[in-house]
Amino acid sequence: MALIVQKFGGTSVASTERIKNVARRVARWKAQGHDIIVVPSAMSGETNRLLGLAREISENADPRELDVIASTGEQVTIGLLAMAIQEQGYKAKSYTGSQVRVLTDSTFTKARILKIDDERIRADLDQGYVVVVAGFQGADADGNITTLGRGGSDTSAVALAAALNADECQIYTDVDGVYTTDPRIVPEARKLDTITFEEMLEMASLGSKVLQIRSVEFAGKYKVKLRVLSSFEDEGEGTLITVEENKPMEQPIISGIAFARDEAKLTVLGVPDRPGIAYQILGPVADAKIDVDMIIQNVGHDGTTDFSFTVARADYNKTLGVLESVKAHIGAREIVGDKHICKVSAVGVGMRSHPGVASSMFRALAEEGINIKMISTSEIKISVVIDEKYLELAVRTLHKVFGLDKED
Amino acid sequence: MALIVQKFGGTSVASTERIKNVARRVARWKAQGHDIIVVPSAMSGETNRLLGLAREISENADPRELDVIASTGEQVTIGLLAMAIQEQGYKAKSYTGSQVRVLTDSTFTKARILKIDDERIRADLDQGYVVVVAGFQGADADGNITTLGRGGSDTSAVALAAALNADECQIYTDVDGVYTTDPRIVPEARKLDTITFEEMLEMASLGSKVLQIRSVEFAGKYKVKLRVLSSFEDEGEGTLITVEENKPMEQPIISGIAFARDEAKLTVLGVPDRPGIAYQILGPVADAKIDVDMIIQNVGHDGTTDFSFTVARADYNKTLGVLESVKAHIGAREIVGDKHICKVSAVGVGMRSHPGVASSMFRALAEEGINIKMISTSEIKISVVIDEKYLELAVRTLHKVFGLDKED
Repeated sequence: MALIVQKFGGTSVASTERIKNVARRVARWKAQGHDIIVVPSAMSGETNRLLGLAREISENADPRELDVIASTGEQVTIGLLAMAIQEQGYKAKSYTGSQVRVLTDSTFTKARILKIDDERIRADLDQGYVVVVAGFQGADADGNITTLGRGGSDTSAVALAAALNADECQIYTDVDGVYTTDPRIVPEARKLDTITFEEMLEMASLGSKVLQIRSVEFAGKYKVKLRVLSSFEDEGEGTLITVEENKPMEQPIISGIAFARDEAKLTVLGVPDRPGIAYQILGPVADAKIDVDMIIQNVGHDGTTDFSFTVARADYNKTLGVLESVKAHIGAREIVGDKHICKVSAVGVGMRSHPGVASSMFRALAEEGINIKMISTSEIKISVVIDEKYLELAVRTLHKVFGLDKED
Repeated sequence: MALIVQKFGGTSVASTERIKNVARRVARWKAQGHDIIVVPSAMSGETNRLLGLAREISENADPRELDVIASTGEQVTIGLLAMAIQEQGYKAKSYTGSQVRVLTDSTFTKARILKIDDERIRADLDQGYVVVVAGFQGADADGNITTLGRGGSDTSAVALAAALNADECQIYTDVDGVYTTDPRIVPEARKLDTITFEEMLEMASLGSKVLQIRSVEFAGKYKVKLRVLSSFEDEGEGTLITVEENKPMEQPIISGIAFARDEAKLTVLGVPDRPGIAYQILGPVADAKIDVDMIIQNVGHDGTTDFSFTVARADYNKTLGVLESVKAHIGAREIVGDKHICKVSAVGVGMRSHPGVASSMFRALAEEGINIKMISTSEIKISVVIDEKYLELAVRTLHKVFGLDKED
């Protein structure tokens, strides 16, 4: 007898047949006596179709009107899904984000949730309804329709789970859980039964695209029990994303190997080693709306230092242009870069209590003849930048070295 | 410097190109200094697509959820149209029915408008915005999304014009006005410059499908100046629908010849001529959700009478079944019917002050050898039921007899 929030992505509701499948799955949970809130995305392809229409009208569309249009995708799904659940013999009722209401700020196309009124939903649950709430959307204080940005349905589900103090928030996706690494690169990759929020955040930001980062942050902050499950398989417990204390005693040191392709590295050589230099370099880059990932500055000598950072490869030329334009002003000697790099990371809360993880990692890569170009560490992650051609080899090597290949 | 409500139907906004055309037309009115409220329908085909999805889920869909789904069609159009007007260089803002708000009763799929809050719209108009409001939809007192039923966008436009005391409500359609009769039958048919609400009601209910009847009733009740215009031609004043006092002095006796195909006639012969017999016959017909059009009962003799009425031809067999089942109970002698009839009507407020219209009509039909099977009259309309094969001949004959062929 639990309160469960279930989120189904666009591929899970891509056709009326699939919506009926989702309804059958919801009905099975309901039949076990649980209270269920369902949060579907738009049917896959629908959001792109709608934004395509908008682009035909305007290349530089008003974000307020974009949200009016884009929010209809989920609105269609909630109506269809509520009907499909009714066909399974259960009471069901749909709500848009405005109706519930999901109060957001007014940052159209990427609004943030401020508050959710739980009154209507609780009243409906008490009367035995399955409540179907549109993901991805809300309304600001003036009643304008807002959307949370791509992938925002995950965040909607977690926010609803937090607001209603749900026992679990289940995210149904086209994978059956979170893996130790990408099984396309390492066939021996294993599904994790549990992973901590911190690890999940590092995995997600490093390229494992199972969950939207914001939803994981949200879940961690509000202590929402989050589970990733397959929407196409009926069996399996998926992966539970937990707060650290709930992890089993004998946890592995490393939980997974994440990686990011399509990165590029830039280095500003011989800049004066004085306060404020990092800001002088990265300020113009941020102004140009370029996202910076790793940032490294080494100890200087002779009063100068070298400053390196990575960006998405698509931003490489633009970044180079920005740096060249400020080169003289900051007194740098030279700008150099490399477009053919990638990033590989070992992630695990266990490394906090296990010294020597970094050196094991560096030795293993050295033994395979892989040169490390940059290193960056956090409490639960060690990342290296290497030549992109070594990506698969490095991932396989580290997966094995840290014992992730083994059976449970 | 007027306040004008402009309604554009589904074919006028069927593509992004057509939406841009509508925006250009709106911009021309705005450029003349007018305040403009635009009420678009869904892109043509969209409502059917949405209801088709719903049908794939359920044959007997929950009307509340149907409205959640169907209302998205107009929501997409308002966003696109607001953007397109912005591209023309004017400020524009869209509102759904819930947002405005258009308060309706809770009769999902065919709700009635109770009240419109004009506060937000007025504030926007004062700031120079073109306000784009979704037709066809509203919300009930609990915030549930409702729709007004097919063609409800006309009603939305008229209701907005009434609530805001607009100077004119313009209905853009794929015809350029109201004609004396269908030009496909009578090439000499003329566009009317003006027509009264009463005439329009009689014309509409008799088969001229230019405007939704409810919107005309609404406009008459609230004295909204209503104009029908072509959305595809830039020239032309269309047809103004007026209250009678505004008609020119020398108005024609007959304004138009309307007709309805696909009718069927049923007669209950030899029923006892006693109070309550009409209800005993038509009560079961109404219970079977069959719409009855003309009803005729003649003076009886020998204590019995004959009772006739017409229905849509598609309802003929069903109606016959209902009558056979009550035949014994009401003590009728026989049920007879005719599936091959049509109805032709002369409509005009002028006939009130001109006796002899009926006899001119009957003589003209007799001279063409057309046998009249039923007659029904109102203050401004004379309808006859005739064999369907004479429909075109009767319409052409009456159009000529009443001087509608002539040039102005």
